[in-house]
Amino acid sequence: MKLGTCYYPEHWPESMWDNDAYTMAKLGITQVRIGEFSWSRIEPSRNKFQWAWLDKAITTLSKHNLKIIMCTPTATPPKWLIDEIPEILALNEANQTRKFGSRRHYCFSSKNYRKESRRITNILLNRYGKNPNIISWQTDNEYGCHNTVVSFSPMAEKAFQKWLQVKYINIENLNKSWGNVFWSQEYNTFEQILLPNNTVTEANPAHSLDFRRFSSDQVISFNNEQVNIIRAHSDSLITHNCMGHFTSFDHYALGESLDIMTWDSYPLGFLDQGWSTEKEKLQWMRSGHPDFAAFHHDLYRNCSKGRWGVMEQQPGAVNWAPNNPTPANGMVKLWTLEAAAHGAEYCSYFRWRQVPFGQEQNHAGLFDSRNEISQGALEVAEVSSILGKLKSLETASNEVALMFDYPSKWMLDIQPQGNEWNYEKLCFEFYTTLRRLGLSIDIISPDHDISKYKLVVAPSLPVIPINLLQNAKIANTKLLFGPRSGSKTSEYQIPPEYPFNRDFQFIKSESLRDSASLKINMNDKIYYSKNWRDIIECKGINNIKFSDGHPAYIHHVDYDYLATWPTYELLKGLLLNLTKKIGIKTTCLDENIRIRHTKDLTFAFNYGDEILDISKMTPENKFIYGGSKIDPHGISIWKTQKNK
Amino acid sequence: MKLGTCYYPEHWPESMWDNDAYTMAKLGITQVRIGEFSWSRIEPSRNKFQWAWLDKAITTLSKHNLKIIMCTPTATPPKWLIDEIPEILALNEANQTRKFGSRRHYCFSSKNYRKESRRITNILLNRYGKNPNIISWQTDNEYGCHNTVVSFSPMAEKAFQKWLQVKYINIENLNKSWGNVFWSQEYNTFEQILLPNNTVTEANPAHSLDFRRFSSDQVISFNNEQVNIIRAHSDSLITHNCMGHFTSFDHYALGESLDIMTWDSYPLGFLDQGWSTEKEKLQWMRSGHPDFAAFHHDLYRNCSKGRWGVMEQQPGAVNWAPNNPTPANGMVKLWTLEAAAHGAEYCSYFRWRQVPFGQEQNHAGLFDSRNEISQGALEVAEVSSILGKLKSLETASNEVALMFDYPSKWMLDIQPQGNEWNYEKLCFEFYTTLRRLGLSIDIISPDHDISKYKLVVAPSLPVIPINLLQNAKIANTKLLFGPRSGSKTSEYQIPPEYPFNRDFQFIKSESLRDSASLKINMNDKIYYSKNWRDIIECKGINNIKFSDGHPAYIHHVDYDYLATWPTYELLKGLLLNLTKKIGIKTTCLDENIRIRHTKDLTFAFNYGDEILDISKMTPENKFIYGGSKIDPHGISIWKTQKNK
Amino acid sequence: MKLGTCYYPEHWPESMWDNDAYTMAKLGITQVRIGEFSWSRIEPSRNKFQWAWLDKAITTLSKHNLKIIMCTPTATPPKWLIDEIPEILALNEANQTRKFGSRRHYCFSSKNYRKESRRITNILLNRYGKNPNIISWQTDNEYGCHNTVVSFSPMAEKAFQKWLQVKYINIENLNKSWGNVFWSQEYNTFEQILLPNNTVTEANPAHSLDFRRFSSDQVISFNNEQVNIIRAHSDSLITHNCMGHFTSFDHYALGESLDIMTWDSYPLGFLDQGWSTEKEKLQWMRSGHPDFAAFHHDLYRNCSKGRWGVMEQQPGAVNWAPNNPTPANGMVKLWTLEAAAHGAEYCSYFRWRQVPFGQEQNHAGLFDSRNEISQGALEVAEVSSILGKLKSLETASNEVALMFDYPSKWMLDIQPQGNEWNYEKLCFEFYTTLRRLGLSIDIISPDHDISKYKLVVAPSLPVIPINLLQNAKIANTKLLFGPRSGSKTSEYQIPPEYPFNRDFQFIKSESLRDSASLKINMNDKIYYSKNWRDIIECKGINNIKFSDGHPAYIHHVDYDYLATWPTYELLKGLLLNLTKKIGIKTTCLDENIRIRHTKDLTFAFNYGDEILDISKMTPENKFIYGGSKIDPHGISIWKTQKNK
Repeated sequence: MKLGTCYYPEHWPESMWDNDAYTMAKLGITQVRIGEFSWSRIEPSRNKFQWAWLDKAITTLSKHNLKIIMCTPTATPPKWLIDEIPEILALNEANQTRKFGSRRHYCFSSKNYRKESRRITNILLNRYGKNPNIISWQTDNEYGCHNTVVSFSPMAEKAFQKWLQVKYINIENLNKSWGNVFWSQEYNTFEQILLPNNTVTEANPAHSLDFRRFSSDQVISFNNEQVNIIRAHSDSLITHNCMGHFTSFDHYALGESLDIMTWDSYPLGFLDQGWSTEKEKLQWMRSGHPDFAAFHHDLYRNCSKGRWGVMEQQPGAVNWAPNNPTPANGMVKLWTLEAAAHGAEYCSYFRWRQVPFGQEQNHAGLFDSRNEISQGALEVAEVSSILGKLKSLETASNEVALMFDYPSKWMLDIQPQGNEWNYEKLCFEFYTTLRRLGLSIDIISPDHDISKYKLVVAPSLPVIPINLLQNAKIANTKLLFGPRSGSKTSEYQIPPEYPFNRDFQFIKSESLRDSASLKINMNDKIYYSKNWRDIIECKGINNIKFSDGHPAYIHHVDYDYLATWPTYELLKGLLLNLTKKIGIKTTCLDENIRIRHTKDLTFAFNYGDEILDISKMTPENKFIYGGSKIDPHGISIWKTQKNK
Repeated sequence: MKLGTCYYPEHWPESMWDNDAYTMAKLGITQVRIGEFSWSRIEPSRNKFQWAWLDKAITTLSKHNLKIIMCTPTATPPKWLIDEIPEILALNEANQTRKFGSRRHYCFSSKNYRKESRRITNILLNRYGKNPNIISWQTDNEYGCHNTVVSFSPMAEKAFQKWLQVKYINIENLNKSWGNVFWSQEYNTFEQILLPNNTVTEANPAHSLDFRRFSSDQVISFNNEQVNIIRAHSDSLITHNCMGHFTSFDHYALGESLDIMTWDSYPLGFLDQGWSTEKEKLQWMRSGHPDFAAFHHDLYRNCSKGRWGVMEQQPGAVNWAPNNPTPANGMVKLWTLEAAAHGAEYCSYFRWRQVPFGQEQNHAGLFDSRNEISQGALEVAEVSSILGKLKSLETASNEVALMFDYPSKWMLDIQPQGNEWNYEKLCFEFYTTLRRLGLSIDIISPDHDISKYKLVVAPSLPVIPINLLQNAKIANTKLLFGPRSGSKTSEYQIPPEYPFNRDFQFIKSESLRDSASLKINMNDKIYYSKNWRDIIECKGINNIKFSDGHPAYIHHVDYDYLATWPTYELLKGLLLNLTKKIGIKTTCLDENIRIRHTKDLTFAFNYGDEILDISKMTPENKFIYGGSKIDPHGISIWKTQKNK
Repeated sequence: MKLGTCYYPEHWPESMWDNDAYTMAKLGITQVRIGEFSWSRIEPSRNKFQWAWLDKAITTLSKHNLKIIMCTPTATPPKWLIDEIPEILALNEANQTRKFGSRRHYCFSSKNYRKESRRITNILLNRYGKNPNIISWQTDNEYGCHNTVVSFSPMAEKAFQKWLQVKYINIENLNKSWGNVFWSQEYNTFEQILLPNNTVTEANPAHSLDFRRFSSDQVISFNNEQVNIIRAHSDSLITHNCMGHFTSFDHYALGESLDIMTWDSYPLGFLDQGWSTEKEKLQWMRSGHPDFAAFHHDLYRNCSKGRWGVMEQQPGAVNWAPNNPTPANGMVKLWTLEAAAHGAEYCSYFRWRQVPFGQEQNHAGLFDSRNEISQGALEVAEVSSILGKLKSLETASNEVALMFDYPSKWMLDIQPQGNEWNYEKLCFEFYTTLRRLGLSIDIISPDHDISKYKLVVAPSLPVIPINLLQNAKIANTKLLFGPRSGSKTSEYQIPPEYPFNRDFQFIKSESLRDSASLKINMNDKIYYSKNWRDIIECKGINNIKFSDGHPAYIHHVDYDYLATWPTYELLKGLLLNLTKKIGIKTTCLDENIRIRHTKDLTFAFNYGDEILDISKMTPENKFIYGGSKIDPHGISIWKTQKNK
């Protein structure tokens, strides 16, 4: 794995650049991302270009053998361009213009902005496409950040109408597919169809879902336009830096066009901002949730045929979460090695130096704004040396996959049917429970090949792909479905035939307040589930029951079906049974410990504040790094015993 | 009482209709509501009509002796009509257009929409007005749903100015009535008066109140236009389906123009969505609050001279509350019989079959979307058989009435003066406390005749009608007033003479946080009140005092006055004293039991999860249904002993 | 100290005026504010004036020897004026017009409204400028109320661009100062710069800060236009009535142009509406927070060279807080004497009589709307008699000052960096802790002379004025800085040199959830801090440490630095140490007791519900009022022993 950093030479006097490059190299950094957000410095007014600074920056970095990741600057069109073409700006859901003055101020459906995006990309590629120091190109920055996938502009409306016409061909198809006879929503022409905002009550869910699909597609096509230009001029790797918690476009679709997927990992910010409990937010405030970065590592790895990296790694406190603590000593090292263990090719720290002005001035860098070195930078040097000792980091073949699907997220967001329902949270709870059984997981889409897994877990899958059950049977892959699986068609209707119909009967479902725990008796112990239940009838299939007699968990020959949102204890119990049955070896881990297997190595990570003894799970005397007692926020690495 | 269902033949293939009608009849259903929301199917484009399907639907249903309730389709003007006349759309408080794409997308003040409403009503009546199978007409659907009574459109502004001119004749009267000298709010002409939204701080409360009155009047006059057309063509009963918790227009005024008032009863949704405590929401999540449906039964019964029904009865889980559980077994039956006990002529289930598309696809029907029968439908069949055994369901004359007044609600919403204040909740707490004393209640407006009641309770009545005290004295009707009664004039001013002035002095009032309990010593026990108190001085009248010496409850010869928001225990104590004094017999009930008297029968309902013994309140061996131990969610019915 | 009241003769029939004036005089009132909000009565339409009523009101009041405070009526431009010049109206942050219908409906940047403001002020001054009965003029009313300092109108945008041009001269300076190279925010011209609302994510903090400064300047210049006209026609004192909790313009800057600063003190409303804990809101619901009024007394006293008063004193329940209790008996007297003890020249009650119409009809007056006398009025009479006994109320020279700075508030609002951070609350907690040590405090700006104080406390001071440390050293004034002090430049950048750099090193800072308490061991006791910490490195300076070894409190020779948000116990401990060291005498007070020293007297106030014994802190037998046991909500006054 290579180390890198995000650098903005235009923020600093040229006189500092050479020493910066020298210091980077000394810390073990080999790649540097530049050019991001620099449009106003490249082209301060229409067709007046300033290249000298950028040429010089490339030269200076290259002098120290640093390779460049160059960015297209399209996340921040400059003011003169907005003034020239005001329609670039997106409109929010209340139809207000999202003004210039920060970043990502563009609508993906603006044809004129598409033209400008291609123009500036072409210009950059013409100049630097063949530069041997540039090993990679990043398109734009964090698509979707600040809720920018959707726009309610007139251009988006026109584009959406066209997209619908292509999809449905004639309006009768659309009316039927959306069920527009309901509430007299029938359209006579595609031109009559508006964006689904500001309706009196909720819009037709099929209408909303198509708008979400369209909006996602617009991101992909915007990106593809840049990708095509880059490919035409350069052989370097193409990437984009995705984010955590972002689900507003289909990242699998984006990944298809990239050579290598990257993402921006901010464990402390994500924890503080997210759905974790108050207790968890306090417990892990300096380490982040033990599974959050891992979840995204495992997700994005499978978005781009296994090639992936961390483009921005938090190096200290950030500026954007509700609370912004400093990481515990050791965490920058730990986060980096966690990425390595999951197969990252690359880990880059954001940012090289804290910028003393602008919106992110309270965001830490490897160096502070007065150029003092940080704890984070010291740990980078240490990581660099550890990585030197680890020869192979080849990814292992995992036995277990978790199915995570963007359209499922959109569907269940549009009609959650219960306030407590949260698709992403449910998936994360399944993931964390599997990880606490010591398993290494792949996260896959419903389109991925499942035949190589012993177990594929779909925490909720409203639309069951036609061949999924069949394919699993052929491959002898066990499927575990969570609640609401099979409850919808891809047109956002209730299917006329329930996909599990041969086996059991889906009666109805109900959403419940979290306090309305449902009892389940399993192996003579009482467990609880909460907030959702599919009410099911089944005859002749083995099942675990709710206390009122309805099946909670169905053991079919080919698959298992869990009809409720489980508590941690219930899910752990169910997964222990299941993995045992199909011959997957598990190790129950402390809440602060996680392990990850590469092809040859096992990594153990301690996210807690206390020394923990892992000697029970490790062979003696084989440690490559650390030992059988892991320090607070420490790491141990050993060679995996092959006959495990 | 007759049973019915809400049916949308246009959602289903014609091939299913006959069997549907057959099954309805078999379940005991005799009336079917159709046509609602069907404008785009009746008139897919201007003046092109499709009648065949509707003719066929009527014929098919009639073949099975089902009677039709036909709806005007004005709650959902189709897209071609909106495109032709965009001004139909209402504007929200932020002056944003409330777009097409769901339902109720019209402004009551749009003259052009009024014209369209009359046009389509005329067309429907011309076709079906004399059809003998249509026994009833429903106007529109749920006026006020999705906060649609108010609109801030230019048309509403013009109409409001005209309404004010009619009311005040000249601008000096308005300025004086509103007190516009305050903050230089004086107007020179009616045309200067805007709608009271988007002001820098709150608008003049008199301005806001007149806007609420105007908005309510617009609903009534919109409805009257349809009623007049229906009456001109048909002798069938005219109704409208109101909702629970809706107070944005005056339902007494609406009821005056109808033959029979109906409402839509969703006990689980209302509980989950409403003001109940977390504990209550958990306790009754599968049964609904024992008094919520009853409150609306008793309210709407008195809106239309005693004729009323339930147009939409929840048959399973709904889709629109924060959490949507499935009803406990037995509840559909219980809810239906509770309506019968309150004198409903009609109970209709919404909907016949769950629709697999559109916004309400997660709303249960008597049959699910795959046409499997539900628990609800089984209970309908059972109810039908029970109803056959009950000969008379004539409404009893009740001794106690509760006064509920829409303008009072508006006034106290406009200036609650304390965050905890909630007029509707206060009325509901009085109602539930009276019900838990075993009483059968009428809910009446301040304009109703009070002379037939022994006791009339006004939980809060800011404007005391001129003759109320006098009328009560003549009729020997005891009045109990709650806090803030008499505090305002109908012009939204503080009255120059306090209506109770002869008797006691209103000093001032104060709103308090709920935790600031005020102590009251009554019969040597300590009670508490909360969140509001009128500070009063009285001499020579018997009263119960707060611990600081101010009167909390005044016993006047003609009326009682409660100066605070009571806790349940305090109110129960006060009402027990009062009813005893004036000779009303009470029976203290368990929190899960409610009883209701018709002229000849007594019904007891168990809203709880456990068997309850009611033998103390029932004569032996007289049960028509059930017995002295009521099952969970069960009902017992017995002949009332006359010399009770 | 003189007593006054706020009177609106136009709200009442002329026949009442004479008796009102007679009663005022009898209660001890000597000054009456009139004319506020009366534009529509003075000028009901363009250039048609009604003076008779106002002339008569002045004459009637003067007959009873009442002096007049006359107001400009510009807080409520009448409807005809808005219709004539619609651009007067401000726009809110969502760019919506803030409509006519309440008050303060104008944009400070409307040039046409400026013209109207000058016109009506000139007209009033031409008529009454030389009237000997008018001893004071109040400009407008409560600048900033209802969030009216900022406006997002096109006029505000133009004015902002001009303001920037004056400040920065050329666009390069602005780009550099704002750091616009970040995110390609660079501008080519001043005309390109928009107001910082509706950006996709937060605007550049330097942009936002300049907008806050500009908006504050607009208030000052609006006010100055009126002040200049008043001065040109009159020798009376000029004032404006400020509010509590209002920080959106710089009150020090406003005070500079006034002769006497006044403010509107509503202790119960401020408590209920503010940041106090639930416990405090309950405990002091009838007395107000013991330090809230005092804080503003001490603040506003130093805004206008020591001359100040209370223009509106709460006399009973108000109408605008979430909950509005009645004051405890005695509190109107106590609040008045607290003002006197802090050096107020004037205390005026709002309002003479409760108005029965309009927005404030639920706001108490000294008389209720039916003209019954209130508890408040009885206390006014009592206060008047007490004040007669107190000869001198000369302000003492205080040893301790607290630094409160408006631009600091704006900076830390714009980028709080942690949800819990609240500059005003932090300052208030320092203030209350100092007051509970029995100290009398001055509140000063960073521009004030600090040389007369032994101790100056800056709870947080992001921008340290250049000479502050030097001046303190020369004057032997001890400085205590709180967290984040010195962290920014006035351009909203991180300073290239940390101001305390010679002494200690600022590493980084972190914001924490309140539950993440940090331990501090001091004098062998454990204390806690919360929600913020500056992480610091220092060598060779005495310091108190966090449990993880970082300095929490630095004792420098010239100043102390507290690197965290302290709990009350921690701050008390630190301040006890510090005051002892520099020879400031303290007296630890019960949470309900506060004392205040004038030059000759000591006042003690009991904000609690129980009698408290203060004999330990008072010399025997010297009481001018009260005694060594203070009644609930009572006051004691004694001659201060000089050799204290």
